[in-house]
Amino acid sequence: MKIPIPVTVLGATGAVGQRFVQLLENHPWFEVACLTGSDRSVGKTYQESCRWILPTAMPEHVRQLRIMPSETDSIPNQLVFSALPSDHARQIEPELAKAGRVVCSNASAFRMEPDVPILLPEVNPEHIELVDVQRKKRGWSGAILTNPNCTSTGMTVALKALQEPFGVKRVFAVSLQALSGAGYPGVAALDILDNVLPYIAGEEEKVEFEPLKMLGKLANETILPAKLTISAHTNRVAVSEGHTVCLSIELEQPVKLEEVARALESYPPPSICQGLPSTPNPVIQLMKEIDRPQPRQDRNAGRGMTTVIGRLRPDPLFHLKMVVLSHNTIRGAAGGSIYNAELYISQYGMK
Amino acid sequence: MKIPIPVTVLGATGAVGQRFVQLLENHPWFEVACLTGSDRSVGKTYQESCRWILPTAMPEHVRQLRIMPSETDSIPNQLVFSALPSDHARQIEPELAKAGRVVCSNASAFRMEPDVPILLPEVNPEHIELVDVQRKKRGWSGAILTNPNCTSTGMTVALKALQEPFGVKRVFAVSLQALSGAGYPGVAALDILDNVLPYIAGEEEKVEFEPLKMLGKLANETILPAKLTISAHTNRVAVSEGHTVCLSIELEQPVKLEEVARALESYPPPSICQGLPSTPNPVIQLMKEIDRPQPRQDRNAGRGMTTVIGRLRPDPLFHLKMVVLSHNTIRGAAGGSIYNAELYISQYGMK
Amino acid sequence: MKIPIPVTVLGATGAVGQRFVQLLENHPWFEVACLTGSDRSVGKTYQESCRWILPTAMPEHVRQLRIMPSETDSIPNQLVFSALPSDHARQIEPELAKAGRVVCSNASAFRMEPDVPILLPEVNPEHIELVDVQRKKRGWSGAILTNPNCTSTGMTVALKALQEPFGVKRVFAVSLQALSGAGYPGVAALDILDNVLPYIAGEEEKVEFEPLKMLGKLANETILPAKLTISAHTNRVAVSEGHTVCLSIELEQPVKLEEVARALESYPPPSICQGLPSTPNPVIQLMKEIDRPQPRQDRNAGRGMTTVIGRLRPDPLFHLKMVVLSHNTIRGAAGGSIYNAELYISQYGMK
Amino acid sequence: MKIPIPVTVLGATGAVGQRFVQLLENHPWFEVACLTGSDRSVGKTYQESCRWILPTAMPEHVRQLRIMPSETDSIPNQLVFSALPSDHARQIEPELAKAGRVVCSNASAFRMEPDVPILLPEVNPEHIELVDVQRKKRGWSGAILTNPNCTSTGMTVALKALQEPFGVKRVFAVSLQALSGAGYPGVAALDILDNVLPYIAGEEEKVEFEPLKMLGKLANETILPAKLTISAHTNRVAVSEGHTVCLSIELEQPVKLEEVARALESYPPPSICQGLPSTPNPVIQLMKEIDRPQPRQDRNAGRGMTTVIGRLRPDPLFHLKMVVLSHNTIRGAAGGSIYNAELYISQYGMK
Repeated sequence: MKIPIPVTVLGATGAVGQRFVQLLENHPWFEVACLTGSDRSVGKTYQESCRWILPTAMPEHVRQLRIMPSETDSIPNQLVFSALPSDHARQIEPELAKAGRVVCSNASAFRMEPDVPILLPEVNPEHIELVDVQRKKRGWSGAILTNPNCTSTGMTVALKALQEPFGVKRVFAVSLQALSGAGYPGVAALDILDNVLPYIAGEEEKVEFEPLKMLGKLANETILPAKLTISAHTNRVAVSEGHTVCLSIELEQPVKLEEVARALESYPPPSICQGLPSTPNPVIQLMKEIDRPQPRQDRNAGRGMTTVIGRLRPDPLFHLKMVVLSHNTIRGAAGGSIYNAELYISQYGMK
Repeated sequence: MKIPIPVTVLGATGAVGQRFVQLLENHPWFEVACLTGSDRSVGKTYQESCRWILPTAMPEHVRQLRIMPSETDSIPNQLVFSALPSDHARQIEPELAKAGRVVCSNASAFRMEPDVPILLPEVNPEHIELVDVQRKKRGWSGAILTNPNCTSTGMTVALKALQEPFGVKRVFAVSLQALSGAGYPGVAALDILDNVLPYIAGEEEKVEFEPLKMLGKLANETILPAKLTISAHTNRVAVSEGHTVCLSIELEQPVKLEEVARALESYPPPSICQGLPSTPNPVIQLMKEIDRPQPRQDRNAGRGMTTVIGRLRPDPLFHLKMVVLSHNTIRGAAGGSIYNAELYISQYGMK
Repeated sequence: MKIPIPVTVLGATGAVGQRFVQLLENHPWFEVACLTGSDRSVGKTYQESCRWILPTAMPEHVRQLRIMPSETDSIPNQLVFSALPSDHARQIEPELAKAGRVVCSNASAFRMEPDVPILLPEVNPEHIELVDVQRKKRGWSGAILTNPNCTSTGMTVALKALQEPFGVKRVFAVSLQALSGAGYPGVAALDILDNVLPYIAGEEEKVEFEPLKMLGKLANETILPAKLTISAHTNRVAVSEGHTVCLSIELEQPVKLEEVARALESYPPPSICQGLPSTPNPVIQLMKEIDRPQPRQDRNAGRGMTTVIGRLRPDPLFHLKMVVLSHNTIRGAAGGSIYNAELYISQYGMK
Repeated sequence: MKIPIPVTVLGATGAVGQRFVQLLENHPWFEVACLTGSDRSVGKTYQESCRWILPTAMPEHVRQLRIMPSETDSIPNQLVFSALPSDHARQIEPELAKAGRVVCSNASAFRMEPDVPILLPEVNPEHIELVDVQRKKRGWSGAILTNPNCTSTGMTVALKALQEPFGVKRVFAVSLQALSGAGYPGVAALDILDNVLPYIAGEEEKVEFEPLKMLGKLANETILPAKLTISAHTNRVAVSEGHTVCLSIELEQPVKLEEVARALESYPPPSICQGLPSTPNPVIQLMKEIDRPQPRQDRNAGRGMTTVIGRLRPDPLFHLKMVVLSHNTIRGAAGGSIYNAELYISQYGMK
C-alpha cells in the first residue's frame, strides 16, 4: 500500500462534500485526486463551481481540479467518498462497488440493507465483516460502507458506552439540530431567524432505527438489531454546526450516577481502532459544568470527532438524563466516512 | 364594581413588567394607575426609568407615571400584578395580601404553598377557592394567586384536554425556550448566537411539578396533585418569544389519534371562563401542517393566549408525540396573571 | 367606481406577493379576486401552492383561490399588482398595459424608462402624469406605475423633506438590509448566521439612481433627474424585515440641526395624498432616543408606511448624519404599490 | 533577555482578557504568570472566576492561577497587558508605568495623550519612540503603549497602504461591528436578535480621530495628526467576531483601480516588524470575489492578524469604495497589544 492513497469525493461541491475536501487536506493517508459534481458543474474547476462555505480557505491543490461526472468511468480511484443525495447514491454507489470501488458513503440510501454496515469504528467495528457478505452475495469486488445519520451518531456512541456494562432498554431522544445538516443552501434564513423548525423530513425514523442496527450483533451474515426502543423528536435550530440531543435512558436496572459517569469517561476505543488517524481522543468527553455541552463551545472537541456529554442526572421516569453533542458534518458525516475508510484499509488493505 | 378598575404593576420596568403594561393598555376592565420599580428607578417617570423592549410603542398614558417603591404603603390599588423577582416577591406579596390587596403574581415564590393556587382559568378555575382557605388560615383580607412557569403553561393546557377523556400517566417534555423567559437583559447575545444553552436554573423542577398541582383535585382545603410523572429537559434557543415543547405522552390506555385530535380541538373553556376578556378563542389550536407550530409564525395565535399544538403522531414508547407552543410572556406570564385577575373578579368581585 | 375594486396579484406565492395578499385583506377599496403564479403552481389553490411565511394567518378568503398563469387572458381585473421577478415582468407588464390593465409593479424592469414613473405619493405624486405620456406614446389604454427599490424608498422620503427647504447636493448611503428583501427562500441561513453579506446584486446602482429620478422635475413629458450625487454601499444583515440606511448629507449650505429636525418632523404629505388609505401618518417620525431607529422596534411605525429617522447629528465632511429606517416589504414594496394604486384611482378613477 | 518572558494580564476574566490568555498560550516569547481581576474574583482560581466564552478550551496551565488585585504591588512582571475598562485603566496604568512596568493596553484611557502612541506595528512603528518622551517628561521607568479601537484598526491599515503612494484626503466609514466588541456579557440577546443597533457609545469619535494620530508624523516629541478627515457611522450587528467597515475614500487625485489594488496587495510590513511573531502574513489580503470579505469566512485570515479587503470599486463621489474586515478581538484588541509588546521588546529589550 502506497501512501498517499488517491481518493475521489462524489458530490464535492455541497456542504458535506466541502467538509470531505477540507478534512482530507492534511490527511496522513489520503489525497484528493478526483472530485465529481452535478451536470451544472462538470468541466469547471472546483473553484469555479463551488460556493465554499467553510470558514477555512479552500485547499490550494484542489482549486484547479476539474469537476467530473458522478459516473463509474470517470472515477479512477479505488477509494471513493460519497456526499451524494440519497436518490443519486442509490443508483451510482452499487455500480461503483461492482466495479471494484470501496464507497464510504454518507448517504442514507443503503443503510437499511442487511448486508451494508452502518459503521462507527468506536462502536461496532466488527460490522465491517459485512464487506465479505456483500462480496459473496452480490458478486462485488468493491463494497459500500455507510456512516449513520448525523443525529444518530453521537447518541449511539453514548448508548454503546452504557450498553455493555448496564444494558439499555428504552431511550427518549429530542434533538436540536444544526443548519449544516440540511446541506447548502438548505434552510432559508427567513425560516429559522427567531424560530425553531419542529420537523425534519425522514429524520425521526432514522434516529429510531439506526442506533439499533449499530448496537446489534453480527450473526449468520446479518445484523440482529439491539433490543431497545427509541422515541425521537427532531428539531432544527439556528446553529451552524453541532447537533445537541437530550436523552432520557432506561437501563436494565438502576445504576449509580457515578458508575455511569465512569463508564462514559473511560469508554475505550476498541483496540482495532487504535492507531487509526481519526480515532477520537477521548472517544467521549464528559463535562461537569452545569450548562454544557454547548454547540458553539464544544463541537470542535477532539477535532470534531469526540462525543461530548454533559448534564448527567437522574430521570424521574427512566434512569438517566443527559445531553449529547456531536459535530454533525465532522463526526456525523464526512469525518465519519473518512474514519470508516481508515478502518477498512486497516482490515482489508488497498491495492 | 366600577370600571375601569385601577391596578398596580409591581416590577414594571422589567421584561414581564413591560408586557403587563402593554397588555393592560386597552384592557376593558383594568387601567394602570401605579407602577413600582427598584430603588434605582423610584421617583423617575416610567419613560425615564424603563428601557422599553417591546415592538409596539410604550403606551402614552403611563409614560409620565412616577415609579413608586414596591412597598405596601405606596400601593393604593386593591388589584396588584406582580412581575417581581422571586426573592423580592417572597417578602412583599404576603404583606400586600395581609393589607387587603389581591396579588396576581407571575413570581414562583408561593406556587408551592398548599393554600396558594397555580391558576390557568381554562384548566383549573375551581382552584381559586383556595382564596377562602388563605383568608381563613392566614387571616388575610387580600390573596395571592399565581400563574405557572411559562414552560408549564402550554403543556398543562394540552395535558388537561387529554386527562379528562383518557387519563395521562407519564410525560416526557423537552423545551426549546425563548430568550424573553430569562428577562431583560437576560441572556447575553454572545451566549446564544450560533448556540443552544442546555440548562435553565430551576426550570426542570418547576416543569416536573407545577402541572401535577394544576391537574390535581381540590379537597379538604388543599390540592391533591395529579398522579402522573413528568420528566423534563429544558433548553434555551435563539428565539425572542414563544416556548416550544416536545411531548411524549403515555395515556391510561391506547387511544386512536383521531380521538386525541378531536379532544384537543374541541377542548372547551370551562363555563366559568366564558365572558372573561382574556379567555382564548380557541383554547387550543390544532395544526395539521407537518412542520408546525413554529414560534415566529404561531406564537400570536389568539392574541398570544391560545395554546398551539401540532405534529400529533404515535410514539414508539408511550402513546403520543406532539409539539406544543405557547407565548411565554403573554399566556405564560403577564397575560396569564391578567386572566387570573379576571377570574378572581368574576367570582369575588372587587370593592 | 364601485367598491370594492377587484384586483389581481401577479406572482402571489413569493415573499412580496404574500405581503400584497396580506395588506389587501382588509383594504377599504380593493379586494383580491385573482392570484397568479409560476407553472408549478397553476391550477392549485393558493393554500396548496404557497408556503406562507408571514406571522399572521393566511387570509381565509384567498385560501381556495386557484392560481392562474401570469398571462393577459387569465387576468380579469383592470387593476393589477405585480410581484413578478424582473425578467418576467419585462415581458408581461407591457402586454397587460396594452390590454388596458393598470399595473402597479414592484419589479425593477421598467423603472428606468423615461415615461414610467417611480412613484412615492408622499414625494412625487405629480409624476403620475407620465401615465398620459405612456398612453400617448405607446398607445396603451392601461399603464405601468412602479415603486422604487426597497432601499431607495426611505432615504428618498428623507431627502425630499430636505430638498425643498435646503437643497441636497451629495449623499453617502450605507444600507443594512433585511432578509425579506431577497425574497423567499432567498438568503441561505448558513450564509447569514454570524455573518454580514457586503454585496447585493444590482442594488447599489438602483440606490444611486432611483432617488434622482424621484426627486426630479417632470417637464416636456419626461423627468429631469435631480442634480445630486449618491454613493451607496449595500449590505445584507440578519434581520427579517426593515432596512436601515446610514446617511451623510451635504446640503446647499449649512443649516442648523434644529431646522433640519423641524423640516423632517413637519414634512407634510402632499395635499393630493390626503384621504388616501395608505398615506402614512406621520410621513416621517423623528426619534430623539440616541440608539434609534432599530428595525425590530420601529419597522411597524405607521403600520409599516412611516419613514423613521433618528440619530440626527453633524457630519465632519458633509453637513448631516442620520439613520433612516423603512419597512422594506410594506413601504418599500407591496404597501408602496398599493399606495400608488390609490393615487392612480384618485386621479384617473377606474371603470 | 530570557525566554519565555513572564507577563501579567490585567482584567483577565473579561472578553478581551480571555483573548489575551488564549493568544498567549503558545506564544514563542511570552508566558502568562499573573492574572488580575475585580474584587469579586480576587483569590479565586482563574477557572472558578472566569466564564470562558471562547470556542477553544481554557489553557491548562492558567486554570489554577489565583486572581490577583489590579494593583501595582500585586503585579510581579515587567511586561503587563491591560484589558481593563477605561476608567480603571486611567488610574492604575500610570502607576504601573511609574513603577517600571511596560503596559501594553487595549484601554482607550490614554490614547489621546500627546506622548502616548497608538501603535499598529505594520503602520506606525516609529511612534514607539514616544516611550522615550514619556520617560523624559513623566519620569517613568516603564511606559504605556496603546493599540487603537477595534474599528479604527483595519481601516487604518488600509488607509496607510494608500497614504504613502497616493495621499488620502477624505474618508467615509460605516461599520457593522461584532458583539464581542462590547465585552461580556455586553449586548443582550433580546437587543440584537432580528435587529441592528445603530449606536455605540463613544465609538464614532474614536474612529474619526485615532486613524489621524496613527497616520501622523512624529516630530518634536509629539505627533502631528495626518491631514485627512473621517466621517464615521458605527453600528452593532448579530456577528460574534469580525468588524466590517464600508469605506469611501478620496485620494489626492484619481488613481486607477489596478494601481490601488497593487498598493494594497503588496503593502509590505515595515522592516522593523519582520521577525516579530505576530506580524501578519500578508498584512493585507485583497479578495477578488464579489461578495467578500465576510466576517464568518474571513475573520481568521492570517490567524486573525491580517486585514482583509474586498469589493474595491470606483465611488461616484470620492475615488474609491472598499470593504475592510478585521478581527476585532485579535488584530483589533488582544492580538494588537501583544504585537505592540513584541515591537517594544525588539527595540528596547527587557531586563
